[in-house]
Amino acid sequence: MMRTRPLKVALLGCGVVGSEVARIMTTHAADLAARIGAPVELAGVAVRRPDKVREGIPAELITTDATALVKRGDIDVVVELIGGIEPARSLITTAFEHGASVVSANKALLAQDGAGLHAIAEEQNKDLYYEAAVAGAIPLIRPLRESLAGDKVNRVLGIVNGTTNFILDKMDSTGAGYQEALDEASALGYAEADPTADVEGFDAAAKAAILAGIAFHTRVRLDDVYREGMTEVTAADFASAKGMGCTIKLLAICERAADGGSVTARVHPAMIPLAHPLASVRGAYNAVFVESDAAGQLMFYGPGAGGAPTASAVLGDLVAVCRNRISGATGPGASAYTQLPVSPMGEVVTRYHISLDVADKPGVLAQVATVFAEHGVSIDTVRQQGKDGEASLVVVTHHASDASLNGTVEALRNLDTVRGVASIMRVEGE
Amino acid sequence: MMRTRPLKVALLGCGVVGSEVARIMTTHAADLAARIGAPVELAGVAVRRPDKVREGIPAELITTDATALVKRGDIDVVVELIGGIEPARSLITTAFEHGASVVSANKALLAQDGAGLHAIAEEQNKDLYYEAAVAGAIPLIRPLRESLAGDKVNRVLGIVNGTTNFILDKMDSTGAGYQEALDEASALGYAEADPTADVEGFDAAAKAAILAGIAFHTRVRLDDVYREGMTEVTAADFASAKGMGCTIKLLAICERAADGGSVTARVHPAMIPLAHPLASVRGAYNAVFVESDAAGQLMFYGPGAGGAPTASAVLGDLVAVCRNRISGATGPGASAYTQLPVSPMGEVVTRYHISLDVADKPGVLAQVATVFAEHGVSIDTVRQQGKDGEASLVVVTHHASDASLNGTVEALRNLDTVRGVASIMRVEGE
Ligand SMILES: NC(=O)c1ccc[n+]([C@@H]2O[C@H](COP(=O)([O-])OP(=O)(O)OC[C@H]3O[C@@H](n4cnc5c(N)ncnc54)[C@H](OP(=O)(O)O)[C@@H]3O)[C@@H](O)[C@H]2O)c1
Ligand SMILES: NC(=O)c1ccc[n+]([C@@H]2O[C@H](COP(=O)([O-])OP(=O)(O)OC[C@H]3O[C@@H](n4cnc5c(N)ncnc54)[C@H](OP(=O)(O)O)[C@@H]3O)[C@@H](O)[C@H]2O)c1
Repeated sequence: MMRTRPLKVALLGCGVVGSEVARIMTTHAADLAARIGAPVELAGVAVRRPDKVREGIPAELITTDATALVKRGDIDVVVELIGGIEPARSLITTAFEHGASVVSANKALLAQDGAGLHAIAEEQNKDLYYEAAVAGAIPLIRPLRESLAGDKVNRVLGIVNGTTNFILDKMDSTGAGYQEALDEASALGYAEADPTADVEGFDAAAKAAILAGIAFHTRVRLDDVYREGMTEVTAADFASAKGMGCTIKLLAICERAADGGSVTARVHPAMIPLAHPLASVRGAYNAVFVESDAAGQLMFYGPGAGGAPTASAVLGDLVAVCRNRISGATGPGASAYTQLPVSPMGEVVTRYHISLDVADKPGVLAQVATVFAEHGVSIDTVRQQGKDGEASLVVVTHHASDASLNGTVEALRNLDTVRGVASIMRVEGE
Repeated sequence: MMRTRPLKVALLGCGVVGSEVARIMTTHAADLAARIGAPVELAGVAVRRPDKVREGIPAELITTDATALVKRGDIDVVVELIGGIEPARSLITTAFEHGASVVSANKALLAQDGAGLHAIAEEQNKDLYYEAAVAGAIPLIRPLRESLAGDKVNRVLGIVNGTTNFILDKMDSTGAGYQEALDEASALGYAEADPTADVEGFDAAAKAAILAGIAFHTRVRLDDVYREGMTEVTAADFASAKGMGCTIKLLAICERAADGGSVTARVHPAMIPLAHPLASVRGAYNAVFVESDAAGQLMFYGPGAGGAPTASAVLGDLVAVCRNRISGATGPGASAYTQLPVSPMGEVVTRYHISLDVADKPGVLAQVATVFAEHGVSIDTVRQQGKDGEASLVVVTHHASDASLNGTVEALRNLDTVRGVASIMRVEGE
């Protein structure tokens, strides 16, 4: 059954993930060959710094000319692990044009231009696979695209960024503030020197765009994703969450509207009940809940990053793409036939936890309650706390649209008796 | 892009799962067509009782002659949802011989004769898919076969039977005994009139055989799976488990031996620590842990049975198989190239929790400890409890082989001072 001509793989990038891909391709060569039905051969490795020592990789395979490598014409699969928009996008495009299929882990690029790249892949009748781009090792894109292809997904709710989950978990378990927890994450290698992409939710937003597009068979652009980072989450927020039997997680949430006519995608910190399976996802782990019509609630859990885990996902794609090349077929590509529009954040409906600093005098609660009622936001519970002339009101609402909530908060700020809005946090997963 | 000729599907069986498959094929016809690239048409439905009212299914599609249906020659995909060995096996074989691909949820048949059926499928160049056969709606076979195709799986540890998990969860949360919990499961429809297949672990053993074969790329027969049911689990066992910070689950465990040269597969009740994610799997839910070299620990969670959830998995396979037919390819089939032997239970290494009824006199502990030592089973902890001349010893061991443990227990039974071995339970998930 084994064909003899090996499949040739060009590796673009040999950093955290790429070096693990190269290592496993070498150490597991026989297994990969058996599973694919033909040997796979590392035909070239493009890097920026040619002189860096790269254990296990023959020096003659190293090149700094990635473009020449993908243009060679004999490459079956290009594995793009450089990251970022350029030169990754041009290299992938060139790869397709020169007959290769592509495996990538590049969430930033896929979120920004997945549709464009899929179009070129389809034009050239080639595969574009990127399981590793969302939630690292966790099989998620394949289950959504294939296992649930006969079902109707209504909601994807997940922890898709390990750095922020590590920080929030620390804050939760130790009572630390944001900065202290971030410092620990940095010291342990869980946060990059510039943590902006993680803590401001850009990384999670890219993943949300990719997941929403696949889950709802529509096109979701990065700009369609509402994004709020988690740098403003305080120890006091965790204390409030605990009071409600909740913890706080940075969630990526993709939803189909109740009427089915539109979808939303958003990333923000939110309170979730301790009994929810996502609440017990610790450290840098990721987990994603998927709700669909027929299957009900599914959860996928595992390491969301790291060289070896991410390489596992890359290699799973590599095997699939190689098998497709041998059989002359391509796997399921982009599917955006529903053309469902993405609604703005104002139309998202959820619950809210609002802390207000108020004057400690009679009638304040009545005033506040009136404002909520005027904006059509129904109150679930209110807790009043007062000491030394200062008082606080903690309001938890029933479901309301983000627009109504924003209107409410604006009106609250204009009340004389409201000294400030200490925090607003959405409540999910109930 | 849409081809016009519809793909024809023959549904064999229209019971709990089959009726849901038919319903979704009708209500979601447009979505299925868009995702497949061609419409799918229900060409016939084989049942035992032709006169039963079947909502939404045109009477002219119903037949009792399943063999004639699969022999028609124009069927693209046969969906087998009859269950059991015959006539399912013959029908599937005939389907392949008449040019159809097959989707099935039949764990009993696949565990008993998966290799034979895969061989015929391969001979005929057709697909045989059965995601629904293990853990219902949970994507598990596709992730193992495809997503982890570039990785090395070392362990699969899961709750793969909803009925027994419901019963054990009840016993744990209410202190009920086995019979009481079983009665409640029956009353709520979670247990069948004859619960033997579930409570004696036959159903889980079939799933373990399927999972082990796929995970380790070898052939694991149903007879290779060690099986112990959960009918002997008592309220006292749960009390002991709690004392150790554990609960009790019926687990399917597939492992690669430490030296990599063999595998094992087994089903039995076991204590697992409350902190383990499987410990908090409630009610009839299923969850499966997968440990691999590169990905690390993954978990898949969801409804393991039920008409609609199981239909979700069946339809995911149907979409994949239809796509393959259009492209003229077949998906990844059986993979048993490692030919790893399956070791007997005696070679399984794990930890044990043993309760002994002993005479309440000095020197008993020393005697007992000597027996463990003589059999090379190292003790982790011992707890002695005595009252009214009766006493009990609870021993928790370090890792030891099942054979050594059995030898130890036999020798203990021969001690004058040991009145009885009240329970032996394995301890997993640490
Ligand atoms: N790290 C993770 O845990 C993780 C998880 C999921 C997804 N991903 C994604 O995987 C991709 C790779 O991430 P990584 O962490 O492996 O990145 P990395 O460690 O920074 O490695 C990047 C590699 O690309 C090479 N490179 C950079 N610019 C290049 C250019 N112009 N031409 C040729 N090679 C160039 C670098 O060369 P030098 O070695 O010479 O510097 C390096 O080998 C990214 O898309 C990332 O988002 C990463
Ligand atoms: N139920 C679940 O939750 C679940 C979950 C996972 C996997 N599965 C698997 O799915 C399969 C179907 O299970 P199910 O629960 O749907 O079973 P079911 O409710 O008992 O349905 C069986 C169907 O097969 C038909 N049938 C029986 N013998 C037949 C024959 N000789 N020729 C033609 N049709 C025949 C029956 O016809 P009548 O309608 O006329 O009686 C019925 O429609 C089994 O392999 C099972 O292990 C089930």
